[in-house]
Amino acid sequence: MTNVKVIHQKYMQRALELAALGRFSSMPNPMVGCVIVADGTIVGEGWHAKAGEPHAEVHALRAAGAAARGATAYVTLEPCSHHGRTPPCVDALLAAGIGHVVIAMEDPNPLVSGQGIARLRDQGVAVTVGILADAARRLNQGFVARMERQRPWLQVKMAASIDGKTALVNGESQWITSPQARQDVHRWRAQSGAILSSAATVLADGARLTARHPHAQQQPLRVIIDSKGLLTADLPLFKETSPILLVQAEETPVVAFPEHVERLILPLTESGNIDLPALFQALAEKQVNRVWTECGAQLAGALLQANLVDELVIYLAPKLIGAAGLSLVALPEYTAMAQIPELTFTDVRQVGDDLRIIAEPRMTLGDQLL
Amino acid sequence: MTNVKVIHQKYMQRALELAALGRFSSMPNPMVGCVIVADGTIVGEGWHAKAGEPHAEVHALRAAGAAARGATAYVTLEPCSHHGRTPPCVDALLAAGIGHVVIAMEDPNPLVSGQGIARLRDQGVAVTVGILADAARRLNQGFVARMERQRPWLQVKMAASIDGKTALVNGESQWITSPQARQDVHRWRAQSGAILSSAATVLADGARLTARHPHAQQQPLRVIIDSKGLLTADLPLFKETSPILLVQAEETPVVAFPEHVERLILPLTESGNIDLPALFQALAEKQVNRVWTECGAQLAGALLQANLVDELVIYLAPKLIGAAGLSLVALPEYTAMAQIPELTFTDVRQVGDDLRIIAEPRMTLGDQLL
Repeated sequence: MTNVKVIHQKYMQRALELAALGRFSSMPNPMVGCVIVADGTIVGEGWHAKAGEPHAEVHALRAAGAAARGATAYVTLEPCSHHGRTPPCVDALLAAGIGHVVIAMEDPNPLVSGQGIARLRDQGVAVTVGILADAARRLNQGFVARMERQRPWLQVKMAASIDGKTALVNGESQWITSPQARQDVHRWRAQSGAILSSAATVLADGARLTARHPHAQQQPLRVIIDSKGLLTADLPLFKETSPILLVQAEETPVVAFPEHVERLILPLTESGNIDLPALFQALAEKQVNRVWTECGAQLAGALLQANLVDELVIYLAPKLIGAAGLSLVALPEYTAMAQIPELTFTDVRQVGDDLRIIAEPRMTLGDQLL
Repeated sequence: MTNVKVIHQKYMQRALELAALGRFSSMPNPMVGCVIVADGTIVGEGWHAKAGEPHAEVHALRAAGAAARGATAYVTLEPCSHHGRTPPCVDALLAAGIGHVVIAMEDPNPLVSGQGIARLRDQGVAVTVGILADAARRLNQGFVARMERQRPWLQVKMAASIDGKTALVNGESQWITSPQARQDVHRWRAQSGAILSSAATVLADGARLTARHPHAQQQPLRVIIDSKGLLTADLPLFKETSPILLVQAEETPVVAFPEHVERLILPLTESGNIDLPALFQALAEKQVNRVWTECGAQLAGALLQANLVDELVIYLAPKLIGAAGLSLVALPEYTAMAQIPELTFTDVRQVGDDLRIIAEPRMTLGDQLL
């Protein structure tokens, strides 16, 4: 590896750290970080805090002032070249006289990707692309998913005893996991554009589906599938003022709900369930980057079988409920080992007394054929 | 901590490492390591390889030769003062003129504990006891359990998908876990004095219950509970020549088995099951230090409910079988969260693609009242 590449990685790593400061606030925008380096010294840093507020590059250029002239700018995402809610960052970089722009990854939006890079090069600015690209994509996996496939990044949370049971035989499930695990769940909620659940789960748990965490800066859209019209306006859920999207069918009985409740009418599949791909397309159109799902065995199984799950986040408590308890996920009655869904464990750590395991479904044959 | 204690710990740590070399061969004897130090230099090392062969101290003294005079001996277990299959180590230490003996833990056998220490002190040798005592007890947890409570250390192995299913709905279970996990199981078998299973599991899996691992030096006693007399002499199990203990009741129909099969007749409990505490007492009498259990949900549940389990060794594969699969452990239909058995995770690591979780049952109210 050349010495230059090592230096690029060092500053890009710093830019990624800055970007991640927007984890709880930048959505629906991507997290972006920027570092400006002149003569081997950082002269300006910035990150994008919130949609409508200045982009990372603008903050960093302001901090650098005159030192930006001829300097190198490290940006975790290709600078924008179009007028959005703020002026294009490419113009700001050019105006400041930046000599070299190092970019982790191109804009994942296929409609604008490469335009910022092209304009910088047209204006005589050196551009290097692809430094720590994998880390940059991972950081913005939600935004990237929405842009590239018009579907949010989907996480499904599960919580069970070490023998895979989510509740006692009588449905009792509060609480299997530790307070620390439940706090961790609220941290995930606070990083998500939407929380997805089902009417059955909301009714069973009395769930409010809000992000109750010290870092929370935005409340996720609460998306509840209720094709049978089971929910009533007196539930604790509706007392909270953050927006709710009730996902229903034409056939669902209509009930009067408070003003912050929107109904989304979607078609039913042949088996009588809500069309899940249509739901996620609708959520992408609502600029949701990441969906955090807390649901029962049925919806979790349906999402897995539809190949819609990007990550399972599984909390396993050091407890045994036994065979009579409720199972984690409903799947077909497989009769050969080759049929069962396989995963890859990508992260395992202790959270309180519990284990938290992150697993990604492996690509299925169905995916490969697409 | 005094400087002297740090030095003691350093050499005792080395003695424990030596002791562990006997992991696959010393049983039913404890693992013991010995280091002899003269003027800050190790002049002799030894460990106990096998019952009937010289003890750790004898090997270390031979290596040290004349340098043992006035030296300090570090021993992981109180030296023996009685004639067993070999002469007493205390006599050997005295004859060599050792000036100071540092001991990790006293002999756990309540009948002889302290006698070696007393005799050394009577003869004017300085004795220090308790250096790295916890590690020494843990290393010999099987031997300590058999000596102190007349019951072997009991491990129960479980293997399941991440959703806690041990087999498909049709009973198919080969293979959920990775080859590396199955190799790890053979390593545990090779460290155990006995493997415990049930006739149902042996029949379902065609199990041979032998230790097939490059480190294996002894074959564990194969203990199979078969109170109904389900096993027949033509099973693969009986083709292997290592000893088998068939655990049956007076009422069990008698079948002719090969010579290496011994029948152990035990009483049945009121619920018609073999008296498990009586079984473990019998295994302790047969000098079994560690029992490795591979069984189904029923026996695992019975062992847990009887508070006989010291450790669960749970392999979780990155796969999902779904609610239709077979559950990990049969327990009563608990109706309140306070009733369910709690565990402590003591070790989590990746083995092949799988997670291996070691969990200890927390002491139950029943235990505390004993």
